[in-house]
Amino acid sequence: MPEALEQDYTLQQLQQVTHAINNGQFVQVRRILAETPPCDTALLLESSPHKVRTQLWQLVDPDIQGDVLEELSEDVRIGIINQMDPELIAAATEDMDDDDLGEVLRSLPEDVYQDVVGAMDAQDRARATQALSYQERSAGALMSTDTVTIRPDVTLDVVLRYLRLRGELPDGTDDLYVVDKENQFIGALPISTLLTNPPDKVVADLMDDEKETIPVSMDESDVAQLFERHNWISAAVVDDNLQLLGRITIDDIVDVIREDAEHSMLSMAGLDDEEDTFAPVLKSSQRRSIWLGINLLTALLAAFVASFFESTLDILPILAVLNGIVPSMGGVAGSQTLTLVIRGIALGHINNTNQKFLLGKELAIGALNGVLWSILIAGVVAIWQWDFVLGGVIAFAMFMNLLAAGIAGASIPIILKRMNIDPALAGSVVLTTVTDIVGIFAFLGTATWFLV
Amino acid sequence: MPEALEQDYTLQQLQQVTHAINNGQFVQVRRILAETPPCDTALLLESSPHKVRTQLWQLVDPDIQGDVLEELSEDVRIGIINQMDPELIAAATEDMDDDDLGEVLRSLPEDVYQDVVGAMDAQDRARATQALSYQERSAGALMSTDTVTIRPDVTLDVVLRYLRLRGELPDGTDDLYVVDKENQFIGALPISTLLTNPPDKVVADLMDDEKETIPVSMDESDVAQLFERHNWISAAVVDDNLQLLGRITIDDIVDVIREDAEHSMLSMAGLDDEEDTFAPVLKSSQRRSIWLGINLLTALLAAFVASFFESTLDILPILAVLNGIVPSMGGVAGSQTLTLVIRGIALGHINNTNQKFLLGKELAIGALNGVLWSILIAGVVAIWQWDFVLGGVIAFAMFMNLLAAGIAGASIPIILKRMNIDPALAGSVVLTTVTDIVGIFAFLGTATWFLV
Repeated sequence: MPEALEQDYTLQQLQQVTHAINNGQFVQVRRILAETPPCDTALLLESSPHKVRTQLWQLVDPDIQGDVLEELSEDVRIGIINQMDPELIAAATEDMDDDDLGEVLRSLPEDVYQDVVGAMDAQDRARATQALSYQERSAGALMSTDTVTIRPDVTLDVVLRYLRLRGELPDGTDDLYVVDKENQFIGALPISTLLTNPPDKVVADLMDDEKETIPVSMDESDVAQLFERHNWISAAVVDDNLQLLGRITIDDIVDVIREDAEHSMLSMAGLDDEEDTFAPVLKSSQRRSIWLGINLLTALLAAFVASFFESTLDILPILAVLNGIVPSMGGVAGSQTLTLVIRGIALGHINNTNQKFLLGKELAIGALNGVLWSILIAGVVAIWQWDFVLGGVIAFAMFMNLLAAGIAGASIPIILKRMNIDPALAGSVVLTTVTDIVGIFAFLGTATWFLV
Repeated sequence: MPEALEQDYTLQQLQQVTHAINNGQFVQVRRILAETPPCDTALLLESSPHKVRTQLWQLVDPDIQGDVLEELSEDVRIGIINQMDPELIAAATEDMDDDDLGEVLRSLPEDVYQDVVGAMDAQDRARATQALSYQERSAGALMSTDTVTIRPDVTLDVVLRYLRLRGELPDGTDDLYVVDKENQFIGALPISTLLTNPPDKVVADLMDDEKETIPVSMDESDVAQLFERHNWISAAVVDDNLQLLGRITIDDIVDVIREDAEHSMLSMAGLDDEEDTFAPVLKSSQRRSIWLGINLLTALLAAFVASFFESTLDILPILAVLNGIVPSMGGVAGSQTLTLVIRGIALGHINNTNQKFLLGKELAIGALNGVLWSILIAGVVAIWQWDFVLGGVIAFAMFMNLLAAGIAGASIPIILKRMNIDPALAGSVVLTTVTDIVGIFAFLGTATWFLV
């Protein structure tokens, strides 16, 4: 199967390259890299431990370093750039798209940035200033300024001749932009319209003058939603006066979509900035330790709550044995709801009109599952310990905690969102704090009441 | 800001529609829906509780129901289709893309499927059979058969005239496919090449004859990786003999990328098939209860392990108070590693050459974080309980469990992957079982040894 071939091909290269590097056969590595397209070289770098990665990078032909940098994920790219000479960075950014150029420059420390810009020629320096003038994660930072513009009053024949004179079109050109003399956007002429209509027709009669444009300040995630919903390949970016500034193409949107979708997953595990599987140990452990620290605080809080019941635990050590079950089930049920709601918010499904319904729905699910698992755990505990009151106690605690999990899972992300806190990042820690404490209180509290 | 406008617009519609539905003003709803593009109608349906959704759907103009179905996420679409009459389904699928048609038909129960196909005309029935002949989640199931093909020996001028005769091009056409008389793929002529070269040039001299093609049986996730790495807008799909079968466009790939990225996140919370935020309560709670059941088993297992130490807990009830801390920290640290490795596997970064390194790296991070949090928890416990031996015991347990978390987090997904089990689905439950049991054994075991 060609699929297997494709993957084996990269894998084989990786093995060869790793082997050659470990044996100091740098000529061999250079030879392999020379035959590898930039996108595969990027994958090789991303799949390499950081030491091998550093060596590998120095063997990449400087002429294609820019192309490779464009293909790398941000985290890996920053790591590589921070080890490069300013002159080499300047050289590598020469042929870069505007959006990648902006991203690279933004990731540089201030002094290195000055050196890099100092090493650029006047034209590149102007391009750099331009690329940095837009806000990070905005449409402006995502766009390329390379657009093909035409006037409304010419015929298709004139357009065709103009394109032949112009030569190569920018990648992903599916629309030509129709602008007036002030460079104001007035419509789009799809390439397919250009190709399928008589050459003597006039642009103004055929252009799509209702084509939506993207305001330069729009957030990149909102841009991605527009692309996804309208199945666009490219879209024009304009300023407040509808002046055409550039265009965004689907290949950059694909990166935004993947990053956004991954962001939720990584954030929920407390890995906000960690995109590099092979980052250095110290860097990774630093990044992760914040999350572990927050978790330690919540675990201590739960222990503190449990300590109120120390005398109960002293009388009935079986409670200590069973004490983990109710919080654990609440945590799992709650994070199911939490995950679904975080995704729903990201997709724009959840808003004022339906969040009350959502809360009701999750509460109902919590109640249903609460009844089910309460009966089950009551049976298991009653038989295991031959203690029916204890079975009743844990069943009640389980039911209460699954209800709490439903409410917390549905409302925490909505509340955090309103407070402008990323629900994916903070949601799960707040949730488990709630389910741990409710679980312990419900179980040990009820037990103290009925059993002591 | 236009961004706010866009979102407010949909939100406003949603509020209007919900309000109108609740008041039985169906004419009003129809009027709003008539002005709403299919992609926004889809968003309205996805954002509505299922009862409102059912009513809403019946008010969507049957002429655009097919377009709306194409835009809906699979889970929501299946729910709607299962309530439709076979004749209406057949009518709605008439103008559907081949890939969406296949998806819709695949989701029907056998008897409904027979009725739907029975209600189709001969042409649509042939198209249906064709669409279903490819394996689910393969390139074949993703492609459209609507391609523009040309011969190698004609001039660009002939191509241009042919396109004008043909009329409209399929969406996302950036390449014309060059085929021989047997419909064998021999190259691609980019539209931009067609537009920027003299009309008297011959196709064969300009076409890209090294353009990669997609084998019809390739898995859709691998297709998506190819699109992402090569920044393609469309690609030709061929059979084993290089016969051109169809083409895949980036808009369908965007869906695959989003689904794949979301799949990991949803699976890790045990929400494998749950894509619908507003699914009926019974359906949701059924789906989630399997996961809760598995978790109950692991929680009982942990309780069973703790029960070995019941006599220790009887003597030292403070151990019961602190018993949750070590497993909790192990669970968090382990799921950080797990999440990163699952993502690395999905992106193709992890393989035989680097997994040993990865294990070493995660072990080192576990050790580093282990030392840090051991010292901290030892200090907290020693001061809180004024018991330095207890502080040492919990520090040792913490260190051991963070090591175990690193090993388990890195190796479990790789092992599951080898066993052909989805690491995103099964990984976290296996992981927490390990970190719970190691945590309890290490803490209560060491405590029994030193303190009792």
